[in-house]
Amino acid sequence: MTLNWQTLTGPTVIVDSHRAKRNIRQQQAKADQLGLPLRPHFKTHQSPYIGEWFRQAGTQAIAVSSVAMAQQFAAAGWDDILLAMPVNVRQLPALNHLAATTRLGITVEHLEALNSLQHIQHPVDLWVEIDAGYQRSGMSWENAAAIEQVLQAARALPMVRQLGLLLHAGNTYQTTGDAGIRQVHEESLGRLGELLAELNFPRHELVVSVGDTPSCSRMTEFPGADELRPGNYVFFDLQQLLIGSCDWDDIALAVACPVIGRYPARGEVVVHGGAVHFSKDAAMIDGRPVFGQVMQQGQHSWGSPMHGARLTGLSQEHGKVQVPPGMAEQLQLGDLLVIVPAHSCLTMAAFNGNFVTTGG
Amino acid sequence: MTLNWQTLTGPTVIVDSHRAKRNIRQQQAKADQLGLPLRPHFKTHQSPYIGEWFRQAGTQAIAVSSVAMAQQFAAAGWDDILLAMPVNVRQLPALNHLAATTRLGITVEHLEALNSLQHIQHPVDLWVEIDAGYQRSGMSWENAAAIEQVLQAARALPMVRQLGLLLHAGNTYQTTGDAGIRQVHEESLGRLGELLAELNFPRHELVVSVGDTPSCSRMTEFPGADELRPGNYVFFDLQQLLIGSCDWDDIALAVACPVIGRYPARGEVVVHGGAVHFSKDAAMIDGRPVFGQVMQQGQHSWGSPMHGARLTGLSQEHGKVQVPPGMAEQLQLGDLLVIVPAHSCLTMAAFNGNFVTTGG
Repeated sequence: MTLNWQTLTGPTVIVDSHRAKRNIRQQQAKADQLGLPLRPHFKTHQSPYIGEWFRQAGTQAIAVSSVAMAQQFAAAGWDDILLAMPVNVRQLPALNHLAATTRLGITVEHLEALNSLQHIQHPVDLWVEIDAGYQRSGMSWENAAAIEQVLQAARALPMVRQLGLLLHAGNTYQTTGDAGIRQVHEESLGRLGELLAELNFPRHELVVSVGDTPSCSRMTEFPGADELRPGNYVFFDLQQLLIGSCDWDDIALAVACPVIGRYPARGEVVVHGGAVHFSKDAAMIDGRPVFGQVMQQGQHSWGSPMHGARLTGLSQEHGKVQVPPGMAEQLQLGDLLVIVPAHSCLTMAAFNGNFVTTGG
Repeated sequence: MTLNWQTLTGPTVIVDSHRAKRNIRQQQAKADQLGLPLRPHFKTHQSPYIGEWFRQAGTQAIAVSSVAMAQQFAAAGWDDILLAMPVNVRQLPALNHLAATTRLGITVEHLEALNSLQHIQHPVDLWVEIDAGYQRSGMSWENAAAIEQVLQAARALPMVRQLGLLLHAGNTYQTTGDAGIRQVHEESLGRLGELLAELNFPRHELVVSVGDTPSCSRMTEFPGADELRPGNYVFFDLQQLLIGSCDWDDIALAVACPVIGRYPARGEVVVHGGAVHFSKDAAMIDGRPVFGQVMQQGQHSWGSPMHGARLTGLSQEHGKVQVPPGMAEQLQLGDLLVIVPAHSCLTMAAFNGNFVTTGG
C-alpha cells in the first residue's frame, strides 16, 4: 500500500508494514533457533489485521491482557489465547464463555482465585504468575511452598488441561544496554531456576513462559523457559530504543501530526496530536520527559530522527514540539510531523487500533 | 439511578450526577452573578448525555477541542460551538460542512490560516488565540501589532460573523492555592488588558473569552472578559484538588477497579485498571507521581479519601495501589476500589465517554 500524506487530515498512526513484518519474522526465527515456541503478546497492536502478519510467520498461540482482547482475537480465529493478567474474578462468566470455543489460558496467583475457577465449565490452561523481582503482580519466587500449594490445588481442579508458570521481567525496562538487560535477565531466570529446583511439582507437567521485549530482542539464552512471550517488538518505540532493544530502523510505528501553530521565538511548534493520541507515557532523556521523536519524512515513509526535534509537552489534543533553529519559520500550517512515540502499545490503544500502513 | 456495585465487571467510570449537576449549577450561578455568559468546555466529558445537564442549567454555547467533538455535539443539537484549538487546516472541508448547520467558532493565530479560511462558504465566528504567558498556543500578548494585523485581515473575510480573542491561562495548573491562582490570573488578565489598550481595533467588535478551571472556580473578578470558558469543573479531580480548585466533596468522577492481586509484604494491591483507563497523567505528591486516590466506598457512591491508599503505578492494564497496613490482607479478589483519577478529562477520554451514574 502506498501512503499518501495528502489524504491525512488529523493525527494518524502509520505502521511500516515492511519493518513490522521483518520484526515478526526475526523474533520468530530466533525462537525457532532456540527451539522455543513463541507466544507474541497482542496487546501491543490489538489488531486482527496485524495478527494475520504473525499467522503468516507461523504464530499459533498468543497472549492478551484483557477479556475484550481475548474476545476480539477469538472472533478473528485465534484458538490458543493466554490472558496474561491475574484473573479478574468478576469476569468469570465471560471467561467461561470464551473457554467453550477457544483454548484459553487463565492466570492466577492466589488460592482464592482457584476457588472461583471451580465454576468454569470448560477446559482451561492455568498459569501461575511468578514475580522474580519486577514487583508488579505474581507470587514471589521466594515463596516456593505457597506456589507449590497453588499448583497442587490447580491440578486438582477438574477443568484444568495444562499448568504453567508465567514470568514477566518488566524491570528490564528500567535498565539500558545489553549489560543492564543481561543483569535483570540473568537475575530473573536465576530466581526462576531456584524456584524450579525447590518445587516438588513434576517439571514435565509445567510449561514455563517468559517474555519481555528487551530480553527477547537482545538475549540469546533463556534457561528454564519453555516459551517466549514478548509483545512490543512488532513496532518497538522510543523507550525500547533508549533501552537498547532496537535501532531506529527497526521502529515500525509513528504518528503523523499536522502543524497547527508556530512559535519561532520559543523554538517550538504545536501539532494536533495530544495526550489522547500519544498517551502521557514518556521516555526520559537527560532527566526530562520526552513523548516522541520527530523523524525525517520520506515520500512514502519516514527516515532518520531529526536532530533537536522532540515532542516535549502534551495536553489533551495539543502536542508541543521543540524544533531546531529555523525550523519553526520553515514549517507551514498543515505540514505533517512524523513522530515516533515513547510507547507504541499505549499509542495504538489510544487510537483504538486504527492505523494506515506504508512500507510495501 | 442507583448504582449496583455487583453489576460492575471491569474498570468502570462512575459519575456522581448529584455532584456534577451541583458543580454545573454553581459555575453557572457565578457567571450569572458576574454578568458573563458561560461557555463550558465539553472536552472534559465528551458526553451528549451529560451535555443535557448543562442545557438544563441554561448553557447555550459550548467549547470543544476537536472536529469529532464538534460533530458529536452538533448532532446532539448544540448550535453554538467554539473549536478552541488552533485550526488544523487539513480539516477545513469538515469545518465548512459543520458551519453550514451550526454557529461554529474557529480559532486562528497566523495570517496564513486566514488565507485557508477564504474557502469557508458559511458564516463563522473567528477567535484569535492570545498567549498571556502559558506558552502553549496563541499569539503573544506582547505582539499587539501582529494581533491587530490578524484581526484586520479576519474582519475583511466575507464569511466572518463575529470576532473574538481567546485566552486560556493553563499556567494556573502549575500553581497551588488561591494566592498562586490569583498571581497567574491577575498577570494573565493584566496582560490581556495591556493588549486591549494597545489595539486600535474597536473593542465593541470583539468578544473576549477566558477560562481555566482553577481561575473560574476560585477567582471573583475577570476584568476584560466577556465570557468564561472553563471545562474540568464539572467533575474536578485529584490535580484540581491539589491546586486548590475544589474540595473532596466536589469531585464527581471516580473509577471503580476490581482487585486482582494482593501483596501484603509490599503493602500493595494490584487492580484491573491501567494506563488505558486512567491515562498516565499524574498528580505530584511529595515529588512522586500519583495517578489516583482511593476513596472510602459507600453503598451507592463514595466518601472520603482513604488515608495512605494511592494509585502509584500504571502499566497498560494493571494499576499498582499502595495501601495502609492490614488492608492488603483484608481485601478479597474482586473487591472494588473506587479511585479518583489525577485527571478526569483524560480518564473520560480513555473510556470513550462510557460511564455509569450514581448520586440520584
